[in-house]
Amino acid sequence: MNKPIILVTNDDGINAPGLRHLINIMRTIGKVVVVAPQSTMSGTAHSITVRSPLRVEEIVKEKDYEEYSCNGTPVDCVKLGEQIVLRHKPDLLVSGINHGSNASINVIYSGTMAAVLEACIDGIPSIGFSLLDYSSKADFRYCDEYVKIIAENVIKNGLPSGVCLNVNIPTVNGAEIKGIKVCRQAKSKWVEEFDERKDPRQKDYYWLTGRFERLENGKDTDEWALENNYVSVVPVHFDFTAHYAIEDINKWKLNA
Amino acid sequence: MNKPIILVTNDDGINAPGLRHLINIMRTIGKVVVVAPQSTMSGTAHSITVRSPLRVEEIVKEKDYEEYSCNGTPVDCVKLGEQIVLRHKPDLLVSGINHGSNASINVIYSGTMAAVLEACIDGIPSIGFSLLDYSSKADFRYCDEYVKIIAENVIKNGLPSGVCLNVNIPTVNGAEIKGIKVCRQAKSKWVEEFDERKDPRQKDYYWLTGRFERLENGKDTDEWALENNYVSVVPVHFDFTAHYAIEDINKWKLNA
Repeated sequence: MNKPIILVTNDDGINAPGLRHLINIMRTIGKVVVVAPQSTMSGTAHSITVRSPLRVEEIVKEKDYEEYSCNGTPVDCVKLGEQIVLRHKPDLLVSGINHGSNASINVIYSGTMAAVLEACIDGIPSIGFSLLDYSSKADFRYCDEYVKIIAENVIKNGLPSGVCLNVNIPTVNGAEIKGIKVCRQAKSKWVEEFDERKDPRQKDYYWLTGRFERLENGKDTDEWALENNYVSVVPVHFDFTAHYAIEDINKWKLNA
Repeated sequence: MNKPIILVTNDDGINAPGLRHLINIMRTIGKVVVVAPQSTMSGTAHSITVRSPLRVEEIVKEKDYEEYSCNGTPVDCVKLGEQIVLRHKPDLLVSGINHGSNASINVIYSGTMAAVLEACIDGIPSIGFSLLDYSSKADFRYCDEYVKIIAENVIKNGLPSGVCLNVNIPTVNGAEIKGIKVCRQAKSKWVEEFDERKDPRQKDYYWLTGRFERLENGKDTDEWALENNYVSVVPVHFDFTAHYAIEDINKWKLNA
């Protein structure tokens, strides 16, 4: 069998240590093409660039390894990677390793997971990896084994149609990771705490900050798994329909 | 009963005709507070502004009506509206009326619907409205009846916990709207068609364009409803877990 072609991206930007680490792992599995944002794009979610032109810069082009930066978002990187760089679909897309959690509600704000969902919409098996350590000096080494097992399983088994994976890895601080748990997204939210300041002209401005609030402790959730030193794997899809609510809302007799 | 407090936002910006129209309808129902982006923010999805400061500018402050613009995204507008402008939760959040469809896969790219989901995460009943006409001269008048019926029903009945509504209104071109249908999100995708150009220095650049592709014709979908001159109402949630896939992936024996 030919080596699988793996498209790699992230939202922390082309120079992020987490991306470099993911590239090295993927190069042991297949032919790697990196298309990643020039600079940090965290919190960009599923945004796309429609009001300004996109550019792609070649950084490395060798046999079995290519690397490009792009002035767009993670979702733009996936679109450009497929249509302009590869000119065909890769066998796998991986995104990350993100510096910080994309578990529970973080999935909705995440550029890392947006890239994964975009590839999934296009029918490409795709996985997002995140380490629960925001530091630029985070130790990604102990992620290797788990990233590799999960990527190889996705290549071997495929994924159900319309499903991608959100993988989060706990910071264990010397303890051992207990294994991998397939979970559901925990209920949680960010409580905004704006940092209110005045500029030198005495005009108000605000920095967005927040406090993470867990809203449940279900043992089948990603938050529980991570707190208990498991790698969490949540199968994610892009059907946002709350199917169970259709019947309820139909009772309103909107057409009376 | 006191007038409900309604927070209004959009992603086309504070001056968009669709927003003006929605404000006028909401003023017949309650006390209205508008917090909308200074300029167009379509395609920003669920992005948040974390790397630059946010500002809020007061435009109108009357009894029962206030209007503010903000330099952030639609999601920032919801957070600032709650925490800085109102300093409490509104009774309802509405977003739109968007110039163009947010049906089917468009929900994932939509700033309009991101604002709605953000309010939903915070437990606020919330609705996004979109008209299937991208023109700045779109005729929003015939939306009034449906926007009002749906908003009043949400105020009266509430919404199931963690559920918000994605409402799309067809362009009927003189024909009659047949009624309102509660639907699921249709399977569809955008097929990228980058417009490849050279700048005056002969360097490549790309404009993101695309072609919408419907992947099914189920009669219980929003796309079917809209094509058949119904207003579509999709209950949407922020649990992205593909629950049905958990069992499948557990068969992989990732911990072998």
